[in-house]
Amino acid sequence: MSLLAIDFGGTRTRAAWYDATLHQIKRDEIPSRVEDGQEKTLGRIIDLARSVVPSDAKPAAIGVAAPGPLDPRKGIISHAETLPGWKDVPLADTLCQAFDGTPTWIENDANLAALAEYHLGAGKGADPTLYLTISTGIGGGAVIGGRLFTGGSGLAIEPGHMRFMLPDGKIYRLEELASGTALGFWGRHRLTNSDQPSILRQAISVNGKTVGEAAKQGDPLALDVVQQAGIWLGIGIANLLHLFNPQAVVLGGSVTHLGDLLLTPLKQTLQENLLDPAFYHDGLIRYAALGEDVCLTGAALYAAQSLTAL
Amino acid sequence: MSLLAIDFGGTRTRAAWYDATLHQIKRDEIPSRVEDGQEKTLGRIIDLARSVVPSDAKPAAIGVAAPGPLDPRKGIISHAETLPGWKDVPLADTLCQAFDGTPTWIENDANLAALAEYHLGAGKGADPTLYLTISTGIGGGAVIGGRLFTGGSGLAIEPGHMRFMLPDGKIYRLEELASGTALGFWGRHRLTNSDQPSILRQAISVNGKTVGEAAKQGDPLALDVVQQAGIWLGIGIANLLHLFNPQAVVLGGSVTHLGDLLLTPLKQTLQENLLDPAFYHDGLIRYAALGEDVCLTGAALYAAQSLTAL
Repeated sequence: MSLLAIDFGGTRTRAAWYDATLHQIKRDEIPSRVEDGQEKTLGRIIDLARSVVPSDAKPAAIGVAAPGPLDPRKGIISHAETLPGWKDVPLADTLCQAFDGTPTWIENDANLAALAEYHLGAGKGADPTLYLTISTGIGGGAVIGGRLFTGGSGLAIEPGHMRFMLPDGKIYRLEELASGTALGFWGRHRLTNSDQPSILRQAISVNGKTVGEAAKQGDPLALDVVQQAGIWLGIGIANLLHLFNPQAVVLGGSVTHLGDLLLTPLKQTLQENLLDPAFYHDGLIRYAALGEDVCLTGAALYAAQSLTAL
Repeated sequence: MSLLAIDFGGTRTRAAWYDATLHQIKRDEIPSRVEDGQEKTLGRIIDLARSVVPSDAKPAAIGVAAPGPLDPRKGIISHAETLPGWKDVPLADTLCQAFDGTPTWIENDANLAALAEYHLGAGKGADPTLYLTISTGIGGGAVIGGRLFTGGSGLAIEPGHMRFMLPDGKIYRLEELASGTALGFWGRHRLTNSDQPSILRQAISVNGKTVGEAAKQGDPLALDVVQQAGIWLGIGIANLLHLFNPQAVVLGGSVTHLGDLLLTPLKQTLQENLLDPAFYHDGLIRYAALGEDVCLTGAALYAAQSLTAL
């Protein structure tokens, strides 16, 4: 039983061929260039997928990671911030037909990353495992009892959409407070609204990447911005602990490369905001173990699980 | 198969005898008077429990609802705000021994209420069902796939312990913003910090009950306090929807008697704070259907489920 996995993102699309033991046999990737429109983009996805399938082979199942919100039961991308103009696109059906009726499942990319980290990565044996990807936005997934938990209609879990109020009285999403995009926003906000010295005042562009780099160099303003993001993540994860009582919270995504600059305020805030110390244990907060192919691996796993459950 | 159910609370203790079809056959209750100490209180619980068991009968199993946090696997009340001085009390073992080795399970009272509302009340057929009890504090439970979801070590779910920041920059628990206790606190706070006219300025005591009654009479200050609690519940439930994507959110507890005064701002805030309208549907937010014996019913159900799973 060989499996075809596709990771379709707003920026890049990856495809890989997996054997029955979930070893990756062949892999390729292309820029998604979704601005060319749906038809061309879908054609490129199919071409890429075909290129990783051995000439004499047919996949037993296809698993696809895609940006949410999507409807995994109907195999439809409802709409996604990273895919402007894409509305109710039947991605699963399109791929199923392109591969002669091969059963095809699509799922939210962060959900599939959670599944992969639980079975093969940092969450092994930890029930429940929560996974957060902190990057341009904040996505997430939950694995309960070894299965992906996606709620009553497949929309769970969206930890980046937890709402918080700031002292200005306005309500913000967690991803507006602690993602890479948020680091850039609050960096620029602080440059404009304070006289704090910073090397960022000479920067051509102030974004999540440059704020992170400045923080690593010890820039006080950038350090404050990163620390504040860590505090918000700590509050957000405290809420997740009170609701899921997980055995592991796996953190992935580019922002986690800030390491202890982010993790120290995160853990301190977390421990200060628990009903009971039993909600926390050493090793609860872990870095993701699988690399950039985490969603491909998750897609292959999910296709295998879904095929077995038929 | 007959079942003995006990609901041990900080104020009252109830016990009831159920037949195999979960019909209540006999029921009684007493004040808990926990201030008399553990030994006397436990003795009274046992006497009450014995009084509802028919003279020729022996329970097949015992289910106990108790205040959390508790350890359902060890059958221990770890500690509870409503039980000062109670620490690591082996409640399940004590009852098991008092009833000649009858298998006994204890669970958090709000979790058992969730289980009862899912199987017999307002959450019937809704998967997942979330239950919130909004009373002195805010407790809750989740039923996923027909089973109680309690996380990795039995501590989930505690929605009253979600953390939020107020414009004063301090962090509050949801139950400090929207419980009956919170209505009293913020009522007194507003009386002290504003000149707003209010019938509460003549009240002997300003607490959740009197603020609620003043709001029902149209008192503007009390209405503002209730509305603000509704807004916070709306934000809290928005977070729950993004994390659990439930099919039903069942609201119980004395504060829900405020009806639309609370529910209107709650629903409005909720709908303003969703990633996608698909997270919400008519009938999602429901009032609890079972009355004051909801925890007894849940305890009987849980004992029957646990016995079957042995």
